[in-house]
Amino acid sequence: MTDTVISSATREVVLGLERPFVMIGERINPTGRKILAAEMAAGNFSRVESDALAQIAAGAHMLDVNAGIPLADEPAILARAVQLVQSITDVPLSIDSSIVKALEAGLAVYRGKPLVNSVTGEEERLETVLPLVKKYGAAVVAISNDETGISEDPDVRFAVAKKIVQRAADHGIPACDVVVDPLVMPIGAINQAGRQVMHLLGRLKNELKVNTTCGASNVSFGLPAREGISATFLSMAIGAGLTSAIMNPMHLEIVKACMAADVMMGHDPDCARWIKRFREAPPLQAAGGAAPPPEGAGRGRREGGHRRRVQSQA
Amino acid sequence: MTDTVISSATREVVLGLERPFVMIGERINPTGRKILAAEMAAGNFSRVESDALAQIAAGAHMLDVNAGIPLADEPAILARAVQLVQSITDVPLSIDSSIVKALEAGLAVYRGKPLVNSVTGEEERLETVLPLVKKYGAAVVAISNDETGISEDPDVRFAVAKKIVQRAADHGIPACDVVVDPLVMPIGAINQAGRQVMHLLGRLKNELKVNTTCGASNVSFGLPAREGISATFLSMAIGAGLTSAIMNPMHLEIVKACMAADVMMGHDPDCARWIKRFREAPPLQAAGGAAPPPEGAGRGRREGGHRRRVQSQA
Repeated sequence: MTDTVISSATREVVLGLERPFVMIGERINPTGRKILAAEMAAGNFSRVESDALAQIAAGAHMLDVNAGIPLADEPAILARAVQLVQSITDVPLSIDSSIVKALEAGLAVYRGKPLVNSVTGEEERLETVLPLVKKYGAAVVAISNDETGISEDPDVRFAVAKKIVQRAADHGIPACDVVVDPLVMPIGAINQAGRQVMHLLGRLKNELKVNTTCGASNVSFGLPAREGISATFLSMAIGAGLTSAIMNPMHLEIVKACMAADVMMGHDPDCARWIKRFREAPPLQAAGGAAPPPEGAGRGRREGGHRRRVQSQA
Repeated sequence: MTDTVISSATREVVLGLERPFVMIGERINPTGRKILAAEMAAGNFSRVESDALAQIAAGAHMLDVNAGIPLADEPAILARAVQLVQSITDVPLSIDSSIVKALEAGLAVYRGKPLVNSVTGEEERLETVLPLVKKYGAAVVAISNDETGISEDPDVRFAVAKKIVQRAADHGIPACDVVVDPLVMPIGAINQAGRQVMHLLGRLKNELKVNTTCGASNVSFGLPAREGISATFLSMAIGAGLTSAIMNPMHLEIVKACMAADVMMGHDPDCARWIKRFREAPPLQAAGGAAPPPEGAGRGRREGGHRRRVQSQA
């Protein structure tokens, strides 16, 4: 199967259908975070630093870094944020901007092979972003929309993704370095958004054979108990072939879903990572708390019936 | 698509790929519950009554009723339990026993069209249980194992399920009244159990076109933070085509996963059921507690970035 390698100066992360799911922390993003935006614009990166360390402690394998601040010098701020995060962590980064000069500034200072977030199917974006991705030997997130916007027809989105993969090849970028974002819309607004994404993930896995990522928080926008919607979306999407997501690792319910999905897909041998994180208290405290052991234990007792039923059949 | 109708005297529940997921409460089962077993054997059904009401309040659409107590008169106890539960609730029941005489005793007193749990692919079971299912006009759970036991090869299990559906037809039972249990093994013991079930669910949906159920608690047997594993298993399995499960509705994390899966599959129009349960506090208290609103609210703020990103793309 296709493997996509992303790296820092000292660590590699591999996206793939036969690999554990890759959690990309979304928190270093000033959009909608006024305090963080003001601090970054003023050259204060202390919150960027604490957000980076907290997301990694919570389980993030990579971090997305965005410096989209209106009227600020985004290229300089993004480059500085990338350098700072790389100076205090060794996880690979996703360099996130809609401004090509900012992407280039981030790429210029990055040590390793980053994920460029992102290119769309729009001609102007393809012809400005792909050469940069090739120049720096990076991988790129391909968002399946184009000049016509985001189609609600997953097969139209598939065609856009296929076009981006082909265009990347024209620029000398292999398909394994294109990570497709099927685009997850808020399901509170578009009730079929989940079905659309699952169908598209299936085609991307079986036909285009590329790795995938998405902004997982979008799906639950506007709904109460968001974590429950996001956790189930991720579980279902991983089952359908999603291999990474830009998400909020600070919510244990969501990290649990991704770790449980690794167990379910057979990507956590002997459930070792699951057991280590959820049975041993000390590491858990550091990583953001565990599910209450009494509940698990109580449930174990109460479900002897089904356990025994299975054992008698086995 | 195939619809399976199960009913009480006054209420119908329909299993189907284009229907909301059906949660079947597993708690009325003395196996592994010593106090309940002793009470039922002594003719005290107060806990059966409270378990029935509590599971329905927590969201169960149907209840499984099992009276498997060693050395007790299971047919009489099962019949009494079925009558009692039907006297205090209107949800359809799954009559659960490995003893044919007990199934018949339960069927004889049941009002409506029950789900018989279960028949296997074993010749002796097929020829004793299927005539009963036909006689009482019930639906039946078909467990995909036979004299050779439970195969770890999902395609062998598929063949067993297909044989049961064909044999049911020989007895005049339509395929829509056969609900296949793909058999969910503890993933802590069989790491590929999840992949096996997802593959089998796909074949059952696309080739045999039958409805499905399973003992969902089995998958997390022996693991810490069981609810997380069961919730993700159910989310992924519903995405793969599972249409019902015998499960523990007393754990909000698991009920949330099933309700979120309905949202994700487009089976909760306008997310109305999700919003009603998780936004309105009073009904929630009665139904087992909600996710803490502050968290949801806080998350909404923190994720403005992704919200805005989507809006700008839309």
